[in-house]
Amino acid sequence: MSGRLAVIGLGPGDPRYLTAEAEGALTDAQALYGYGPYLDRVPVRAGQSRHPSDNREEAARACDALCHAAQGANVVVVSGGDPGVFAMAAAICEQIATGPDAWRTLEVVFVPGITAMLAVAARIGAPLGHDFCALSLSDNLKPWPVIERRLDAAAQAGFAIALYNPVSRARPWQFASAVERLRRHLPGMTPIIFGRAVGRPGERIDVTTLETAADQPADMATLVIVGTRETRIIARPGHSPLVYTPRAAAEVSA
Amino acid sequence: MSGRLAVIGLGPGDPRYLTAEAEGALTDAQALYGYGPYLDRVPVRAGQSRHPSDNREEAARACDALCHAAQGANVVVVSGGDPGVFAMAAAICEQIATGPDAWRTLEVVFVPGITAMLAVAARIGAPLGHDFCALSLSDNLKPWPVIERRLDAAAQAGFAIALYNPVSRARPWQFASAVERLRRHLPGMTPIIFGRAVGRPGERIDVTTLETAADQPADMATLVIVGTRETRIIARPGHSPLVYTPRAAAEVSA
Repeated sequence: MSGRLAVIGLGPGDPRYLTAEAEGALTDAQALYGYGPYLDRVPVRAGQSRHPSDNREEAARACDALCHAAQGANVVVVSGGDPGVFAMAAAICEQIATGPDAWRTLEVVFVPGITAMLAVAARIGAPLGHDFCALSLSDNLKPWPVIERRLDAAAQAGFAIALYNPVSRARPWQFASAVERLRRHLPGMTPIIFGRAVGRPGERIDVTTLETAADQPADMATLVIVGTRETRIIARPGHSPLVYTPRAAAEVSA
Repeated sequence: MSGRLAVIGLGPGDPRYLTAEAEGALTDAQALYGYGPYLDRVPVRAGQSRHPSDNREEAARACDALCHAAQGANVVVVSGGDPGVFAMAAAICEQIATGPDAWRTLEVVFVPGITAMLAVAARIGAPLGHDFCALSLSDNLKPWPVIERRLDAAAQAGFAIALYNPVSRARPWQFASAVERLRRHLPGMTPIIFGRAVGRPGERIDVTTLETAADQPADMATLVIVGTRETRIIARPGHSPLVYTPRAAAEVSA
């Protein structure tokens, strides 16, 4: 009996973002595991069991899925976006590292997907057109000073910054605090993009500036992109503006 | 006469990485523009003109494609990976910013794709499982000291680092110099992943350490991922190892 675990990325939501490889993994699966709202995006297929779980239960979900695959089933764990970017791939690896020996001989594959920052960037132009970083503002698994240090480093060195998990009900002040921190390094006019529910019903893209960013509503479905000193906005008659970071970078000021 | 320009990402190469949206754009196109080897990955369709160009001709290619679309054609510009990550989206925006007014009223869409770092990460586990950055080592469009400053900032602050364009024939020393720079901040045992031609013939993944990374062959088809102090390797009997960066981060040491 040889089971198989595939950890796949659904992309931002709409089926148009799904890759052929992810589609194939979903078709072949005997059991699906994932955060409930992500599982809801997967069409029901006869003969597949579905195991939704809560947002905070990543370790338990990883365990359950590995157990199930180790019993010989073809199991798929679904992530929104890309499984390797603030999602299930790391949680699965953590369990494999400390779990029973059998989990280290299991066939495990990771199937990439379109992560939120790429989808939001594509909607508005090319704000990540040069060097950039991806940073989660959740301080559930790392101390807030680590996040502040990373904000400082990225902004000072001229990276564009994609902020994942900017706000949640349990973390109401972190985003405003991050914006204040970034103001130490970047001009108030630095372009900021808020992409909410991109590729899903209720999609919304707003372009604002660092100066007013803290007033903009954001939630866990929002991905924020912070531009650099070089990021520019192109106004377009009859079209939404384009935002891009040029490929050429000047000397970084000290 | 209303033209349309779509700037699309093919992903790493194999059709299994193509999204449904990118596939649709390719089907509808009247003209295809792109770097020759990327265009070669797109099946020939009757009635589509193909306009390959050289690697270094991004600005001219963007101009040509915009001109063609402004004449009323449905034009697609293809990028490998994601068009917004060290690829054609920024080059198109740069031309729109400075080109004729008509280019700013044109319908332009960007179609995201699986960028190389996500494909390489998926092949080996979850090395980008926590905060990370993407940095091009090409100093064609930015001074080398800017790159050094970004390497310093990213390594010191605990980001995993995806290095794009590590080496080319015209830039033979930059990668070894970057490795030397990273050694100032990271232990010699820090895991380093070399992903070459992922999703294409000749694919190869090698895991090494920062200490020996400079001896590893790399070229323009290689994407390098530099782990953090927390990145771990799981040995697996009968399988290739998994490399992952845990979701939890401890305090960054000074």
